[in-house]
Amino acid sequence: MYISKSFIPILKNNPSEAKIKSHQLMLRVGMIKQSAAGIYSWLPLGFKVMKKIEQIVREEQNKIGAQEILMPTIQSSEIWKESGRYEDYGEEMLRIKDRQDREMLYGPTNEELVTDIFRSSIKSYKSLPQLLYHIQWKFRDEIRPRFGIMRCREFYMKDAYSFDITDEDALFSYNKFFLSYLKTFKRLDLTAIPMAADTGPIGGNLSHEFIILAETGESKIFTDKRIFDLDSEGTKLEKDSLKELRKKYEQFYSVTDEKFNKTEFEKKVSETNRLITKGIEVGHIFYFGDKYSKPMGCSVDLPGGKKDFVKMGSYGIGVSRLVGAIIEAKYDEKNEVMKWPISVAPYDIAIIPMINKNDNSALEKADKMNSEFVKNNIECIIDDTDENFSSKVKKMNLIGAPYQIIIGKKTEGDVFEFKEIGKETKNLSLAEIIKIIKEQKAIN
Amino acid sequence: MYISKSFIPILKNNPSEAKIKSHQLMLRVGMIKQSAAGIYSWLPLGFKVMKKIEQIVREEQNKIGAQEILMPTIQSSEIWKESGRYEDYGEEMLRIKDRQDREMLYGPTNEELVTDIFRSSIKSYKSLPQLLYHIQWKFRDEIRPRFGIMRCREFYMKDAYSFDITDEDALFSYNKFFLSYLKTFKRLDLTAIPMAADTGPIGGNLSHEFIILAETGESKIFTDKRIFDLDSEGTKLEKDSLKELRKKYEQFYSVTDEKFNKTEFEKKVSETNRLITKGIEVGHIFYFGDKYSKPMGCSVDLPGGKKDFVKMGSYGIGVSRLVGAIIEAKYDEKNEVMKWPISVAPYDIAIIPMINKNDNSALEKADKMNSEFVKNNIECIIDDTDENFSSKVKKMNLIGAPYQIIIGKKTEGDVFEFKEIGKETKNLSLAEIIKIIKEQKAIN
Repeated sequence: MYISKSFIPILKNNPSEAKIKSHQLMLRVGMIKQSAAGIYSWLPLGFKVMKKIEQIVREEQNKIGAQEILMPTIQSSEIWKESGRYEDYGEEMLRIKDRQDREMLYGPTNEELVTDIFRSSIKSYKSLPQLLYHIQWKFRDEIRPRFGIMRCREFYMKDAYSFDITDEDALFSYNKFFLSYLKTFKRLDLTAIPMAADTGPIGGNLSHEFIILAETGESKIFTDKRIFDLDSEGTKLEKDSLKELRKKYEQFYSVTDEKFNKTEFEKKVSETNRLITKGIEVGHIFYFGDKYSKPMGCSVDLPGGKKDFVKMGSYGIGVSRLVGAIIEAKYDEKNEVMKWPISVAPYDIAIIPMINKNDNSALEKADKMNSEFVKNNIECIIDDTDENFSSKVKKMNLIGAPYQIIIGKKTEGDVFEFKEIGKETKNLSLAEIIKIIKEQKAIN
Repeated sequence: MYISKSFIPILKNNPSEAKIKSHQLMLRVGMIKQSAAGIYSWLPLGFKVMKKIEQIVREEQNKIGAQEILMPTIQSSEIWKESGRYEDYGEEMLRIKDRQDREMLYGPTNEELVTDIFRSSIKSYKSLPQLLYHIQWKFRDEIRPRFGIMRCREFYMKDAYSFDITDEDALFSYNKFFLSYLKTFKRLDLTAIPMAADTGPIGGNLSHEFIILAETGESKIFTDKRIFDLDSEGTKLEKDSLKELRKKYEQFYSVTDEKFNKTEFEKKVSETNRLITKGIEVGHIFYFGDKYSKPMGCSVDLPGGKKDFVKMGSYGIGVSRLVGAIIEAKYDEKNEVMKWPISVAPYDIAIIPMINKNDNSALEKADKMNSEFVKNNIECIIDDTDENFSSKVKKMNLIGAPYQIIIGKKTEGDVFEFKEIGKETKNLSLAEIIKIIKEQKAIN
């Protein structure tokens, strides 16, 4: 893609309205445009990143056997009255009257709707477990939307729901998502820590938030540092192995502020291991048994002829928020250099050819290079403008492709100035460059 | 995928509320579930088909150089007041007040919003042309939603917008979409005919509807039969080649009823070539010049220092509606047999093993076969239940995988009963079966 043909409206300076770095970068480099308070359009650069995150989230849901569906954004109020949440939800729910004066709403979450789908579709324990998920826009009418897409009103979310008969099976489902989330965030090159959390308006008594550290985060967290050294390596999609994984993480104190207990913290965590800081919530999982299935009459036939209400959990990942969370984790705002993880980068590599009015040879080299990249499934952006070199580099540093190639006057023959962002420049052949990028892409 | 683990709630009989065959099949085989009047959830089977259609639409947009963005569903009323459409649009627009009492709406289309994005991003003619598209949910508050997802309220649509300076360039953009649409529908195995059409609330003076023939369609059409023999083979993405394509189609009379003129029809079309029938609109393209850019002050700098308003067109494809349109075209309701085009089939092949309580050997064969299919990227659904054979076949005929394999008692060795829906059964080896399916997938 030539930068002159792209739709990447870059601003010269940081927009003054943006208070945190993800909001700054996203406006600065034209990833998003605000269209109303807390409502954004995603321009090509932001869209590309979000779609790649969505695809990783999807793949990791599919791996644990979850099936994808798609529920609508507009819901009837009736099912919310059945569950009892219609009045409870408060002003964050965007309530709508249609032309027939029926009470509708823009879904802030989907427990009711998915329970309604399940109860009309599944009649027997033989069809369990069922894990259903969808990736859909949600709306929460925040009184003070802020920080760009981090706390906005219309946001893109993956929410999954599990249906089982016994508590034991339901916890097996819960733990599958626990594993899936660790794997998802790892593929996004984020260290997300599961923390015991409050269940809030979703309900239930078991819940984990997945949080990444960031000074601009809105969640206060209290942990034992050693939890950051853990990972899910070696865990299998089996009951016992998943239980072990949960145990491994839960041996370390790790809670959000609603769950914080000072005495317990100081007793369980030695002073050197204590970490009190802030983080961004990127995922949240809940187990709430029959909180929705019971009032909504969602039961299945058991062996032997009895019936019972299904036991449910719900599992969210903020897909649009993750775009911002990755920037908070990866953007060097002082030097104005972004480096996207290769798994979600809008472009894998940027080519910066030095172009004079009378000399297009560097651009021609870039074009040739690009056709090799295309063959190898490597996405490339080329600055084909005749701006000066330093402003070209600045722009590409904001766009954040993890690799750069500079084609200057000195570039001769088959060796190019190649740089991974944050590392030293090397002189490599095109074949070597392609090999490096393909290897990195294969890992993710 | 085992049918026992899938979320495909199949009904024994046709639902009485469904009047047309796409609505019948989609409810019958659990592709969708209604959640409110004219609002549907997409269950796994329907979702898979819709996603594949979406991906084909996307690829054909990308091929003509359109860039993907994503605009929100909820819009501010302000931009609609700028264009003058806020009052005009009538009750089909779902109007919403947020908690701050601001006037919002659920976008029925996006001319205003994309014009707003463009005017704040692009300043110079040098960045033109620009083709932007998004695939997003829309809402039109139909007074009488009917026919399932064919005329519903919340629907999934691809809408694209073009921005140019001269009429000539703008028509070049228009013609790119004209070609792209022909190619898109061809990949969906549909014969969609472009017909001169009214511009309605979008405005402008040039417009084509793309219509597929169907007795249940809501558009009345008048054409010269010979237009059905045309295709876009050989057309290049160049000004003159695209003009030729338009000419080729426009030599034949072909209009919807708003544009119908009896005298002209009878003069231009010989009696044997006249076709008066009904069809389903699956795409609609418009050229409307500066209808939005002028009132919204969307201009760019021209060479020489002057400014001018950009010339725009818009281009829609009903992605969710296409699921129904394909069923209308392909479903044999009398025999209750669906055959999805391989390009969008929820599964490429169905395996029906005969299973007795004491004999799992057929299922084991199916499993082995499936692992070969997985390696070859062929999606397979297996009926692993112990229902009787004829009810299994019935079910698979509704699900509509274009190929079936039956593993019975007589199946021995490496040769299997293989059938393409609507054709004779053949005895083939697994390698031969894989070859046939891979070839068909490669074409599409």
